[in-house]
Amino acid sequence: MKKKSASCRIIVLVMSVCFARTAFSQADPDTLAFDRYLQISRMIVQRALTDTAGYHLLRGLCRIGPRLVGSDNSMKAILWAKKTMENLGFDNVTLQPVQVPRWIRGDVESAEILRSPAMPGRELSVAALGGSIPTPAEGIEAEVVEVPGMDSIEMLADKIAGKIVFFNEPMDPGRTETFSAYGRAVAQRVRGPSEAAKAGAVGVIVRSVTTKYDNVPHVGTLIYADSLPRIPAAAIGLRDADALHETLKKNPRARVRLTLSCRNAPDTLSYNLFCEITGREKPEEVVVVGGHFDSWDKGHGAHDDGAGCLQALEVLSLLKRLAIQPRRTIRSVFFINEEFGLNGAVEYGRWAQSGREKHIAAVEADRGALTPRGFSVGSNPAVLEKMQSWLPFLSSALIEWIRKGGGGADIAQIKNVQAYIGYVPDVQRYFDFHHSDNDVFSAVHPREFELGAAAMTILAYLISEEGL
Amino acid sequence: MKKKSASCRIIVLVMSVCFARTAFSQADPDTLAFDRYLQISRMIVQRALTDTAGYHLLRGLCRIGPRLVGSDNSMKAILWAKKTMENLGFDNVTLQPVQVPRWIRGDVESAEILRSPAMPGRELSVAALGGSIPTPAEGIEAEVVEVPGMDSIEMLADKIAGKIVFFNEPMDPGRTETFSAYGRAVAQRVRGPSEAAKAGAVGVIVRSVTTKYDNVPHVGTLIYADSLPRIPAAAIGLRDADALHETLKKNPRARVRLTLSCRNAPDTLSYNLFCEITGREKPEEVVVVGGHFDSWDKGHGAHDDGAGCLQALEVLSLLKRLAIQPRRTIRSVFFINEEFGLNGAVEYGRWAQSGREKHIAAVEADRGALTPRGFSVGSNPAVLEKMQSWLPFLSSALIEWIRKGGGGADIAQIKNVQAYIGYVPDVQRYFDFHHSDNDVFSAVHPREFELGAAAMTILAYLISEEGL
Repeated sequence: MKKKSASCRIIVLVMSVCFARTAFSQADPDTLAFDRYLQISRMIVQRALTDTAGYHLLRGLCRIGPRLVGSDNSMKAILWAKKTMENLGFDNVTLQPVQVPRWIRGDVESAEILRSPAMPGRELSVAALGGSIPTPAEGIEAEVVEVPGMDSIEMLADKIAGKIVFFNEPMDPGRTETFSAYGRAVAQRVRGPSEAAKAGAVGVIVRSVTTKYDNVPHVGTLIYADSLPRIPAAAIGLRDADALHETLKKNPRARVRLTLSCRNAPDTLSYNLFCEITGREKPEEVVVVGGHFDSWDKGHGAHDDGAGCLQALEVLSLLKRLAIQPRRTIRSVFFINEEFGLNGAVEYGRWAQSGREKHIAAVEADRGALTPRGFSVGSNPAVLEKMQSWLPFLSSALIEWIRKGGGGADIAQIKNVQAYIGYVPDVQRYFDFHHSDNDVFSAVHPREFELGAAAMTILAYLISEEGL
Repeated sequence: MKKKSASCRIIVLVMSVCFARTAFSQADPDTLAFDRYLQISRMIVQRALTDTAGYHLLRGLCRIGPRLVGSDNSMKAILWAKKTMENLGFDNVTLQPVQVPRWIRGDVESAEILRSPAMPGRELSVAALGGSIPTPAEGIEAEVVEVPGMDSIEMLADKIAGKIVFFNEPMDPGRTETFSAYGRAVAQRVRGPSEAAKAGAVGVIVRSVTTKYDNVPHVGTLIYADSLPRIPAAAIGLRDADALHETLKKNPRARVRLTLSCRNAPDTLSYNLFCEITGREKPEEVVVVGGHFDSWDKGHGAHDDGAGCLQALEVLSLLKRLAIQPRRTIRSVFFINEEFGLNGAVEYGRWAQSGREKHIAAVEADRGALTPRGFSVGSNPAVLEKMQSWLPFLSSALIEWIRKGGGGADIAQIKNVQAYIGYVPDVQRYFDFHHSDNDVFSAVHPREFELGAAAMTILAYLISEEGL
């Protein structure tokens, strides 16, 4: 039985290559298409790794600083990117106006365990969650109730009135898939403040949702329930989360003062930004490759998602450097405001539907710029299978697999696309950086960044040539 | 045709799982073996990622400092490791005496571009290559001939007499496979000094073989040809290699002084070190998992190969923490002196052959401790195929593939093993660290280290249970 399995697998391996060749000779008058694609894909990888041009652009972007949506810095970065696209000579460089919310961190964010007869005081490393209301100028001062996770809040509800709730659920380290561990732990950050308010809490401190054990707070958005009072909320670094936990064990009545000067400001104008290489035969059929250009106001927003945007731009740049004009239009889109509500993606989606263009595929890069692993695809099975037949061309960019799965939050707003494609790199380190001062340019590796860009270039190019 | 290919692939996927199940129910009286293996492998991964115990041991090892073979520090580390193995309660903790060469870097290693009427002087960041003879105490001072790579030295031979040869071939950044780029560029370091001596050179400076653009010299061994004069040789950091290149463009007669106080000392005694969990049914059949315990005397020797050794030890430790006694003996071996001539591996191989034990498989971890990608296996096709049927158990440790290929330099010295297995992590960053002050504990990521250890644990466990 085992022998049979093996022979069968070998036959299939051989057959897949044969079928792949057949597919190409059917789709392309040139029967050498398979070999040509192999050659082109290797050229793309080699060029990316040798020039590392996109990586160097990322350095320029990171020098501007982080790009919180609606901020002056964000506008500076958008204009830098527009100029960069123009300098690179791409077609149809477009700023697309988008109304966006604006939240301002302000100058003050601090927390301290107050000195008591039993305990010395202690500063805590905190940062306001995105969207949080401020505290009064003098802060809020209260006892603290530690809640080990969202599941426990109902049980502790009668202890919470008038207190600061300290959500302290760690990301589960035992899961290989860091995104899945993030997905679970992040509930306390997103919904925790309103859950706490429901039970009468006056403020919230949330254990940072991160894989890195240091003292850097990792921020991110909260969502206030409309029906409940809004209370101020901040993330706390892991060392201080553990220190607060220890303090509360020794002195359950320990008091904390939390002071945040953040505030919501009126909506403002921002922009999606895109450019393209117009298709040589089917210019009205579009393959989108994109990331979101806004970031949190911590670090440089390097992995999240400056890298994704500049990888998307590197897709066009690599084709241009190799003098390849694709059959269909390939467009690099920098969506604005993924972090605070997807306004840019919604606007792009609306615009895409209103025009004469047909969007056939969309690739999103928003999981960091570490070494490539695969692509996750939302499509019908035939399209998925067609893309899987291209794996031989993607292996030099270290793509191991193409699997059924989700594409990404931004591209999901474009309707009727045949394939929603998520670029999936290695993500073991991603949450070390995510939404924090750790997300700086030096955390991005040039080879890893460029292999990702090359993988997306090869995929976008093949879709453009072969259709789906 | 394409449709057929797809259905066929789906059928095969289903069939592989079925065959894998059948294989296990044949080999094990328990027909639930497949599910049990799946469960055990997930427990291994979860435990590794949660405890990160091996990673914390690596911190302890790195605190001792680097472990150049024959050095006092190396001996200190061996005794630390022996005690660690004993504390963890493994069976048969054994020091195996090995005669090893000893080379001492000494206190002085420096190079400078000498001041001339045309040029200012400049210090260069250099480090003696392993095995290099010293210069005279006052250094050697000579003009410099730049040689762009080993291929060019014959062409330039008539210009070299009395000069310092500066080999300046970079690692080819365009290759996805960093080990292949390393393999090509490292020739100038290993054989360059004797090739230069053949043409009458008095000294050699070699561009560091690294992917990281900084000024840290990356060392490694040279091999002097017996028939040729030995001349001193040093690696130079990349920024200074480029500065030297620029200097020589402007002033081809620029002179450099190279001063090295390194020396070869008499052979000395060192040790292989190993320990095991004795097999519950076939204790005389052995699965080896190992790395080399010596390192270069730069950084901490963290990735190369402290991590490999402690991942091998973590294999035993994970089994013990999970109270799993394997069917066959699993042994963790720390080979001594991979970097300077494999004496430890040769000694272990000789000993392995002389005893009554049968080594059925050997796994080597010596490509850094970044995120797992696969295993590279030297075996007959049936054994390879059997191992490939285990991929479902390895995927939670992020093993994507098991391919025909080499195992590793150390385990290659063990004769008649059915499978020589190389652990293959992501290697895009590996040569940033390799043989340099960059190879420190903080360059190792706990999750990446532990996923590698988990992958090797699962594989060693399956071999132990199922045989090959």
